[in-house]
Amino acid sequence: MYTLQQLAEHVGGRVIGDPQTEISRVRPFETAGSRDLTLAAEKQYYEHLEETQATAVIVPQDVHSTHKPLLQVEKPKVAFARILSLFNVEPFEPKGISPLAFVDDDCQIAEKVTIYPFVYVAKGVTIAEGVTLFPGVHVGIGCTIGERCSLYPNVTLYDNVCLGARVVLHSGTVIGSDGFGYVSDGGEQIKIPQTGTVAIGDDVEIGANSCVDRATFGSTVLDRGVKLDNHVHIGHNCKIGENTVVVAQVGISGSVEIGKNCVFAGHSGVADHVKIGDEVKVMMKSAVNKDVSSNSVVSGQPAIDHRKSLKIQALVRRLPELYEEWKDSSESIPERKNEE
Amino acid sequence: MYTLQQLAEHVGGRVIGDPQTEISRVRPFETAGSRDLTLAAEKQYYEHLEETQATAVIVPQDVHSTHKPLLQVEKPKVAFARILSLFNVEPFEPKGISPLAFVDDDCQIAEKVTIYPFVYVAKGVTIAEGVTLFPGVHVGIGCTIGERCSLYPNVTLYDNVCLGARVVLHSGTVIGSDGFGYVSDGGEQIKIPQTGTVAIGDDVEIGANSCVDRATFGSTVLDRGVKLDNHVHIGHNCKIGENTVVVAQVGISGSVEIGKNCVFAGHSGVADHVKIGDEVKVMMKSAVNKDVSSNSVVSGQPAIDHRKSLKIQALVRRLPELYEEWKDSSESIPERKNEE
Amino acid sequence: MYTLQQLAEHVGGRVIGDPQTEISRVRPFETAGSRDLTLAAEKQYYEHLEETQATAVIVPQDVHSTHKPLLQVEKPKVAFARILSLFNVEPFEPKGISPLAFVDDDCQIAEKVTIYPFVYVAKGVTIAEGVTLFPGVHVGIGCTIGERCSLYPNVTLYDNVCLGARVVLHSGTVIGSDGFGYVSDGGEQIKIPQTGTVAIGDDVEIGANSCVDRATFGSTVLDRGVKLDNHVHIGHNCKIGENTVVVAQVGISGSVEIGKNCVFAGHSGVADHVKIGDEVKVMMKSAVNKDVSSNSVVSGQPAIDHRKSLKIQALVRRLPELYEEWKDSSESIPERKNEE
Repeated sequence: MYTLQQLAEHVGGRVIGDPQTEISRVRPFETAGSRDLTLAAEKQYYEHLEETQATAVIVPQDVHSTHKPLLQVEKPKVAFARILSLFNVEPFEPKGISPLAFVDDDCQIAEKVTIYPFVYVAKGVTIAEGVTLFPGVHVGIGCTIGERCSLYPNVTLYDNVCLGARVVLHSGTVIGSDGFGYVSDGGEQIKIPQTGTVAIGDDVEIGANSCVDRATFGSTVLDRGVKLDNHVHIGHNCKIGENTVVVAQVGISGSVEIGKNCVFAGHSGVADHVKIGDEVKVMMKSAVNKDVSSNSVVSGQPAIDHRKSLKIQALVRRLPELYEEWKDSSESIPERKNEE
Repeated sequence: MYTLQQLAEHVGGRVIGDPQTEISRVRPFETAGSRDLTLAAEKQYYEHLEETQATAVIVPQDVHSTHKPLLQVEKPKVAFARILSLFNVEPFEPKGISPLAFVDDDCQIAEKVTIYPFVYVAKGVTIAEGVTLFPGVHVGIGCTIGERCSLYPNVTLYDNVCLGARVVLHSGTVIGSDGFGYVSDGGEQIKIPQTGTVAIGDDVEIGANSCVDRATFGSTVLDRGVKLDNHVHIGHNCKIGENTVVVAQVGISGSVEIGKNCVFAGHSGVADHVKIGDEVKVMMKSAVNKDVSSNSVVSGQPAIDHRKSLKIQALVRRLPELYEEWKDSSESIPERKNEE
Repeated sequence: MYTLQQLAEHVGGRVIGDPQTEISRVRPFETAGSRDLTLAAEKQYYEHLEETQATAVIVPQDVHSTHKPLLQVEKPKVAFARILSLFNVEPFEPKGISPLAFVDDDCQIAEKVTIYPFVYVAKGVTIAEGVTLFPGVHVGIGCTIGERCSLYPNVTLYDNVCLGARVVLHSGTVIGSDGFGYVSDGGEQIKIPQTGTVAIGDDVEIGANSCVDRATFGSTVLDRGVKLDNHVHIGHNCKIGENTVVVAQVGISGSVEIGKNCVFAGHSGVADHVKIGDEVKVMMKSAVNKDVSSNSVVSGQPAIDHRKSLKIQALVRRLPELYEEWKDSSESIPERKNEE
């Protein structure tokens, strides 16, 4: 339970109406009810402020209402996310190391951690304060896990993986498995040992059943704030820049370099050794097979400039009509023999 | 071992030949042998009934043979599946709770269950009769698991997930991990807490290494009889209607609504907030980015009506020849200067 | 530590320079330093031999240098991989069976194995010498695991799976889950029991979070030397030929037959019952929906001959210009009424 005033202070906003209005939950516009705070970030919502059953509404700074208590903020969606966290994210309470877990003696484990049953921690591991390892997690030899990381059930870290602070890895995700490297010798595939590892920056979150392969040499790197969805594949030796967002089932091949703040939509893919700049957007199912400069939007298979891609797509869709038109017009031309 | 008569009664069919014919296995047409029952559902098979080594054959109602004992049924493939189950699916025998499992005291566990070693069951969980939890399964706080569910090794249920009766989850599948929701605040991605859960209806089966994300609010829902293959991604807030079938590696983005009896072929995908009707078929690798009405068949990237898509595809394939033809015909036209 | 001479003997090469040159690591060309061996397999590297800080360089047989000690070999990349293994792959040291593992009494386990905590081995399993089962591995009833296999954390083998020698399965991979087989009975999906299993040949390696489904009858088969990347789906009843390489997120539907030495690039897929010959290359994101003969290269959706596909793609990319050209030229033709 918070007052509207307390929430306004939490997100740096301004209360319009009674600052002591009590808020006990956060709910979407359509389903919010009494004592709920809701969000009206877009016109379609804030033009109907009187209709929501919510007790109060987060709105942009210039939006007003006749009766409804409002929380005016610069970035309504950001404020909504922050307040939702306030209500729903429980503070960490260390439960210690379960006697049903296996933790090697040769490890440095901070005092305030939670390690559940059936977790395996190999030798040489360092675990900082506030870390939660859920059941079935495997931490390989020599790994480092930063403050307040959460590794959900059945996550696997191979040897020597390094996680920054506040990294969240969802169930079934595998960090540091061997990169896919072979040399063909007359049909037979000779394995290239993958001697490197994976380094993951602060505040990275990775969805369920994703994979980040270890480097052949050195490290595969996810910079600070990278967010991967479920079923994402990151090949060996990749470097992914800060705050880049990668949606479900995307595949990034080996040795790809990606800049900051990029977005990869679902099922898109990048061929190996490609370099991608900052702020690039790759559309759904696109196949990037050459370098992309910063601030581009690309789509298609292979991916090209998205505006050109849309033009081509529109023409491709019209091909049946264009073909008919062309046939009609050719028939209307008196035929001439090719004189060669 | 069953007699043909017993099998006929099991599936509501009619025996042609000796009803006491003994059947000890079910096998495919090409490899069936003595005392085997096989299936001839299509002409290519039932026109060669004398050639199979099988002792008896399931056939459509109007198919006859000179010598071979037959089991005539209305739906031969359905009868085959039901009889194959009769021979191959062992009845559930409860083994109890392994002393090597961890089950929180504050749970309601039915008497006749099988909980294998290294299973973790958190507090507040309800498990009905006939449930099997294989090794490495994780059941989060407050989950409900209906009668006769089977959770194969290393399945993860996050907190508060609800499974109906007879749900089958194959290994590595993750139900209830966080939906992929962030708000960008000057590059930084602010997480939107995913406060909802997942509700899965009766008779749902999900393949290996699939993911169904929890809702931001409320529940992501898979209705009764939905079947997901391996590596399927279902985003947060989705509703999937009864008996819809989703083939391997399909990705359904957030807040998608899908009707009953749809089929999604491999590698297809749906963009967020799209609504899809009943009985829709989405072809291999298609990208659905707008609403689709019931009974449609769609294909392409983006997906359109499949018949139109096939026409376009045929023309695209002919482009090299059409281009040559066009070049030839243009050359045959006396060139005129553009007079503007 | 090895001398250059020892390494030359290991890979069948010839030393140019001091055979007693001591080598303590293997590193890439750009980052190699003192006492490192590196690789210069291509012109761009071996024309700059004097620039690397490496102590010695693996080169093709006809490449020379003024000062740098060289290891001349017929296949430089193969030699590099073999020498890298020599330095980086530790010999197997059996650690025995952890008291925290569960191994059924009715199993045949070789003496020299390593079975980590929280591994579950069901009854009737046979495990050969040199096998490592990492934490969280599940081995179903009746499985056979050949010599020197490594199953990384949280791998699942369903019942009766058979692995040859030196098979490597990375974390989260699932072998033998049910094939996706249903018969529709008025909307309701009736499951076809998957009564077969999976047989995996010697020297197969499978990446993380991949799935190979069990056959309906008989076995799904991966022949000797097959290499699958992460997130690969192999449907029921497939046969994959020797040394075929399948890159990340590829989906092979049920009952597909694939020959030897094929390569499937990322996100490609094959429809069910398709037959593919030997030495076939399937390009990124292609959708193979009919049989492909040996030695073909195919691409596109659906996949066709890659050269034709490239021609079509080039024309599709030029469509906006071709359309403008066509419009200009049609306008320049005196219009004629269609006289019908």
